[in-house]
Amino acid sequence: MNPVAVDLMGGDSGPAVIVEGVLAALEDMGGEIVVVGNEEAVRPLVGDSRVRIVHASEEILMSDDPASAPRRKRDASMVVGATLLKAQEVSAFITFGNSGAAMATALVKVGRIRGVARPAITIELPVPGTTSTVLLDAGANTEVIPQWLHQFAVMGSVYCSARLGIDLPRVGLLSIGEEAGKGNALVKETYPLLAEEPSINFLGNVEGRDIMSDRVDVVVTDGFTGNVVLKSLEGAAHLFAHAVLAALSEGDDGVLDAALPKLLPLWNQMTPDDTGAAALLGVNGLFLIGHGASNARAVSSAVRNARQLAEAGVVQTIRRLEGSAGE
Amino acid sequence: MNPVAVDLMGGDSGPAVIVEGVLAALEDMGGEIVVVGNEEAVRPLVGDSRVRIVHASEEILMSDDPASAPRRKRDASMVVGATLLKAQEVSAFITFGNSGAAMATALVKVGRIRGVARPAITIELPVPGTTSTVLLDAGANTEVIPQWLHQFAVMGSVYCSARLGIDLPRVGLLSIGEEAGKGNALVKETYPLLAEEPSINFLGNVEGRDIMSDRVDVVVTDGFTGNVVLKSLEGAAHLFAHAVLAALSEGDDGVLDAALPKLLPLWNQMTPDDTGAAALLGVNGLFLIGHGASNARAVSSAVRNARQLAEAGVVQTIRRLEGSAGE
Repeated sequence: MNPVAVDLMGGDSGPAVIVEGVLAALEDMGGEIVVVGNEEAVRPLVGDSRVRIVHASEEILMSDDPASAPRRKRDASMVVGATLLKAQEVSAFITFGNSGAAMATALVKVGRIRGVARPAITIELPVPGTTSTVLLDAGANTEVIPQWLHQFAVMGSVYCSARLGIDLPRVGLLSIGEEAGKGNALVKETYPLLAEEPSINFLGNVEGRDIMSDRVDVVVTDGFTGNVVLKSLEGAAHLFAHAVLAALSEGDDGVLDAALPKLLPLWNQMTPDDTGAAALLGVNGLFLIGHGASNARAVSSAVRNARQLAEAGVVQTIRRLEGSAGE
Repeated sequence: MNPVAVDLMGGDSGPAVIVEGVLAALEDMGGEIVVVGNEEAVRPLVGDSRVRIVHASEEILMSDDPASAPRRKRDASMVVGATLLKAQEVSAFITFGNSGAAMATALVKVGRIRGVARPAITIELPVPGTTSTVLLDAGANTEVIPQWLHQFAVMGSVYCSARLGIDLPRVGLLSIGEEAGKGNALVKETYPLLAEEPSINFLGNVEGRDIMSDRVDVVVTDGFTGNVVLKSLEGAAHLFAHAVLAALSEGDDGVLDAALPKLLPLWNQMTPDDTGAAALLGVNGLFLIGHGASNARAVSSAVRNARQLAEAGVVQTIRRLEGSAGE
């Protein structure tokens, strides 16, 4: 298994935080990791022989135009990393930089799996008390057609098996009613495609309330709805955690101090740090995009998850299942 | 001001719970309330002279086909109530029955405000620590066009002013990026219509994370996205409350007992009981649809809110603003 590669440039907090996460992941899982960035700047941060630096002279900034960035900055760390992935010198590539530019770079430099029409951003939503829910598309495609959702369902199921160890994940189509006839035209046309797909365990339509529950493993939707739902849930978790702490601190009677050690594990679970990065499924290589604001724990999680997805052969399985589709 | 009318039939828990809520609202706000239902069945429940019973021999059930129900059951309580509203004998009508049938009944028996293309389900999402966020459409229209979203924005702003006492509510268009060019085709085409609408205070695009925050007062979206978001947030609140209680109960050391009295007000705020019913804005009369599972507190809230909306003249204001539009 080739090593995972990590983009050291482009994160909101600079390369030191990413290096910290990379070293933590190495401690945990052993092996070797490739980091991509300006060698002069990052060499002093990396004193570990298990970390191999690949030099890239440029950096794609948050302010760069996403679509043109991979062509304008050919020696940017993101482009160099994607090129390593394309050449299969690394088993996965993770960037915490400009996410629009990351999608463009993945498409231009790595390309799609033959037969896959559109890559989808695939995320894991932590559900306290049970396994995470995989959701896709979380924002890559604002307008979709039923055939693309069909491919998202297959890819999401493969991802879920690899990451969460579920043999035949329950796949649900996000709608506004459980019955087959409920939803908008897109959902109604997609339903029979998923019902007839032999490689997935299709539950039928699921509703918004099922996402944060143990009733479904993979939720399939368009990138507009998926992104709105993801950010709504993130906002709610943030507000909710603050409201609970504010309520417990009233009266200044020590209840907050007693409760905090019990609540912190839950707070940690609900933040995206444990997942670390979203996978751009459908790309012909394991390309992951992390939050720009990722801390070392998030980086470390992303590296471990990428290794797990690579070992499970997620891209190979999608190639096999989608290889002849849509052509 | 004519009284508010309440449908006693069709709720999941039967008429006694609804009567309990009606009596609680009367205690609180005085005046008179009309209830609609089978007189023989409900008379023993209603001993208050301020409650006037209007007899209806039939009841629309959850199992009835929504579209045909108002025509097939002409003497159903929902239809009788809508007829009272149409005749302006009551200032508002609230039902807790089959919500699909309620929408059909409102359209068939009360009709739309002249100039309004489609009614929208308008809800209030409680946001701990600040005012609620008004969201529409929460599920009436799964496919919409920009002109309808434009009308939703105007109607939602009027509603928000009346219910939350905000002079010029901040109206946001739900999208997946704050910049004007971000989103799907629907959002991009709707944006300029809202930007040019003189009766609203248009913030621009808002994202999912803004819904549960104090950054926006009215969130405008299509009924598919709105319903998915609403149910996602309800599911998250439910799960989150359980997870907090489970975490606090670990160790059996009394922390839960000390925390519970502080958390209960928050739990109560996050459940839909305080809003009680969604308004079907655009109908030519104040028609509200409550959860079938509403308890007495939710019923009481719904009655008080309906009175408030009636007193503020929400329907009259929408008539004035939309009277010449779309014709």
